[in-house]
Amino acid sequence: MDVTRALAEYLVRASYAELPNAVVTEAKRSCLNWLGVTVGGCRHEAVETALAAVTEFSGPARASVLGRRERLDILHTALINGISSHVLDFDDTHHRNLVHPSGHVAAAILALAEQMPTISGREFLNAFVLGVEAECRVGNAVWPSHYDAGWHITGTAGVIGAAAAAGKLLGLDSQRMTWALGIAATQAAGFREVFGTMCKPFHVGRAAQNGLMAALLARKGFTSSERAIEGSRGFTHVLATARDLAAITAGLGGRYEILDNTYKPFACGLVIHPAIDGCIQLRNEHALSADLIEQVDLKVHPLVLELTGKRTPVTGLEGKFSVFHSAAVALIDGMAGEAQYSDARVRDPQVLALRERVRTEIDPTVTKDEVKVTIRLRDGRIMSKHVAEVIGSVNRPMTDSDLEAKFRALAAPILAHGQVATLVDLCWNLEQVDDVSKVALASVPA
Amino acid sequence: MDVTRALAEYLVRASYAELPNAVVTEAKRSCLNWLGVTVGGCRHEAVETALAAVTEFSGPARASVLGRRERLDILHTALINGISSHVLDFDDTHHRNLVHPSGHVAAAILALAEQMPTISGREFLNAFVLGVEAECRVGNAVWPSHYDAGWHITGTAGVIGAAAAAGKLLGLDSQRMTWALGIAATQAAGFREVFGTMCKPFHVGRAAQNGLMAALLARKGFTSSERAIEGSRGFTHVLATARDLAAITAGLGGRYEILDNTYKPFACGLVIHPAIDGCIQLRNEHALSADLIEQVDLKVHPLVLELTGKRTPVTGLEGKFSVFHSAAVALIDGMAGEAQYSDARVRDPQVLALRERVRTEIDPTVTKDEVKVTIRLRDGRIMSKHVAEVIGSVNRPMTDSDLEAKFRALAAPILAHGQVATLVDLCWNLEQVDDVSKVALASVPA
Repeated sequence: MDVTRALAEYLVRASYAELPNAVVTEAKRSCLNWLGVTVGGCRHEAVETALAAVTEFSGPARASVLGRRERLDILHTALINGISSHVLDFDDTHHRNLVHPSGHVAAAILALAEQMPTISGREFLNAFVLGVEAECRVGNAVWPSHYDAGWHITGTAGVIGAAAAAGKLLGLDSQRMTWALGIAATQAAGFREVFGTMCKPFHVGRAAQNGLMAALLARKGFTSSERAIEGSRGFTHVLATARDLAAITAGLGGRYEILDNTYKPFACGLVIHPAIDGCIQLRNEHALSADLIEQVDLKVHPLVLELTGKRTPVTGLEGKFSVFHSAAVALIDGMAGEAQYSDARVRDPQVLALRERVRTEIDPTVTKDEVKVTIRLRDGRIMSKHVAEVIGSVNRPMTDSDLEAKFRALAAPILAHGQVATLVDLCWNLEQVDDVSKVALASVPA
Repeated sequence: MDVTRALAEYLVRASYAELPNAVVTEAKRSCLNWLGVTVGGCRHEAVETALAAVTEFSGPARASVLGRRERLDILHTALINGISSHVLDFDDTHHRNLVHPSGHVAAAILALAEQMPTISGREFLNAFVLGVEAECRVGNAVWPSHYDAGWHITGTAGVIGAAAAAGKLLGLDSQRMTWALGIAATQAAGFREVFGTMCKPFHVGRAAQNGLMAALLARKGFTSSERAIEGSRGFTHVLATARDLAAITAGLGGRYEILDNTYKPFACGLVIHPAIDGCIQLRNEHALSADLIEQVDLKVHPLVLELTGKRTPVTGLEGKFSVFHSAAVALIDGMAGEAQYSDARVRDPQVLALRERVRTEIDPTVTKDEVKVTIRLRDGRIMSKHVAEVIGSVNRPMTDSDLEAKFRALAAPILAHGQVATLVDLCWNLEQVDDVSKVALASVPA
């Protein structure tokens, strides 16, 4: 079976008009989430360091580094925006294969669109959906052996997605799209050993930049294998011990991977999300404030304490690994975004005082998506909440208004209030936008 | 064992003064060979296509595309010169691990040197030797499982070598060198499915560009794992099913991998080299010319006909897969360089006539490095030659004058006679050169 060619031919012929409404909607939700985490991450040290290293090598400045004033050539812009999108570990996740689908795809094609003659919101959405489709299908084909071997699937499958999306915007024919997929696939890289360092978001930046480069090379006739994905010395054999090639080609255009995308409501590891979710629900239902609370009891899955049992965090980053801090800010602020994981917030006396009144108990009957919260107030009242399925999962997705709130919280420290509103509006109406460059320009501080 | 850190610490402390003379000599031979194949390859379609795609994205033009008039930023220059160096499949080969060691390492540091304050020939040679050392030791550690799995080891190990060499020129401390190796390792890419397409030399270009980028990022403090090579989710585990980590650190500074480097005397697959070698020897010993020859009989290893049995090649490229054409040009021209594999040469009536008088016979007792040639002349004389070990192998290396002749043949169509002489002189006296940029500038058409 000619998998690479079949995928390329689908990508070439697929049009916006064929996209079901639900797919367009989910693509817009993904884009809003992506813009938020990218703008929110744009001042991170990894982004600053990468910019310090590469700016002097930039070609003609034709694209916007989101959330910042720098402009770079489109390849370097794709790199930097890709890094920004993943640096907070707050981006989206395909719930079956753990690909973070949007970062590199959107970074590649938004930068490209800024250089091209006008690209409409519909063209952008179609290319975006197709990029996600390509990478997630390749991800499905090698899941789980590829990830288990130590590959960072977002980097490896991601470069193929970025190439597919960029190739679509460039209008490649099927021969050139086949080459673009091949040039991308043979650049697939990134292993999990570097998690916890700046190289993790670098994988996303490189996937964006290298995928875009693959499409640009293919456009000029740079050749690659026609069987880069399925060949015995190609992607699915060299980078995985098992593979399901039919997962790449079956039902193309009939079902869409983006419908399995999920978004993180909280700026920390998924394992604490149920506890935060339960605390926020109780806070909101009972108008709780910290001074009313005597004690918080959490019955949690064993992994919660193994991964996030830090009793006395000192830095914001350590706060992300503390279920105690997370429960405290959830109860006080009603959220757990980046602001709740600043160094200052982790050292705030009010947060510290409440954190010390949080107790945890491992309950082997509690699943990873679950928590049982009981709060005893100083006035003797007791209230409890059983979260059976955490917010942000496929079955209990963040609402549009949740996503909007997340976006506002991330963008507010970087962009003016009016710009934040403009961006929200552009995203929700992306299929009506005549020129998608407007999104990039609105994401830059005025 | 901290392999990545130990390697980084060695790279940081190793100095030119410690290099044995034999190592300096081999490094100069490698550089001359590299310059020849790079200049010789610079007009290939893959190079033209890549330039057409990337030139518009170049930053400040501070480095020389070898053999051409274009100047690009150093990262793109490294990419293009890396592609040129491998596009003829005529570059050097480490005889144990099949890494082509020089292309990406030299491309990265020559471009970098052009941008830096004066880099001497000694600094360049030291960085070059260390880059080759790093990549070949990593290559040894994962050989053969890594290659057998389908990886193009020149791309994967190569990016680490390019980073090591560039990091050395940049004067990275051991923390930053450790990160540079890590940033490089997690970019390791390139599989063998794309052999036969432009992506094969692209791997070398990307190794140069990405390794250089790794060093530039690390210099600014961009972090990576400290265990990117040895960690359980790092290079030697994720990209290979078996590994010998001691091969990376044992005897550092005591023995040098570059001493195992070999050079191709002929511009075609290694398997035909013994036949060409034997024909050239008989031609030279007996002053043969085509019109004297009645018949040529070759007793060859079975792979020779399997891989290069093309009886009637039509294009230059097909000529590389024809032992018949190769034997004919070897007898007529006394060489088998790029000029002998042009379309015109393959169609030349005199070559065709002799080619038809070449007979082959598979001899199971003949090894891959061996051939038995018998030539019957029209006057009835018979002469034969048994090549027991082919020219270009580790045990029968090309002489300095062989390398010089190869260089001249490759460079002559591109550079003026005086420049060719200057470059030869610069290479043989590289340790005396005050500014290695002179090598780059002399490699550009006047």
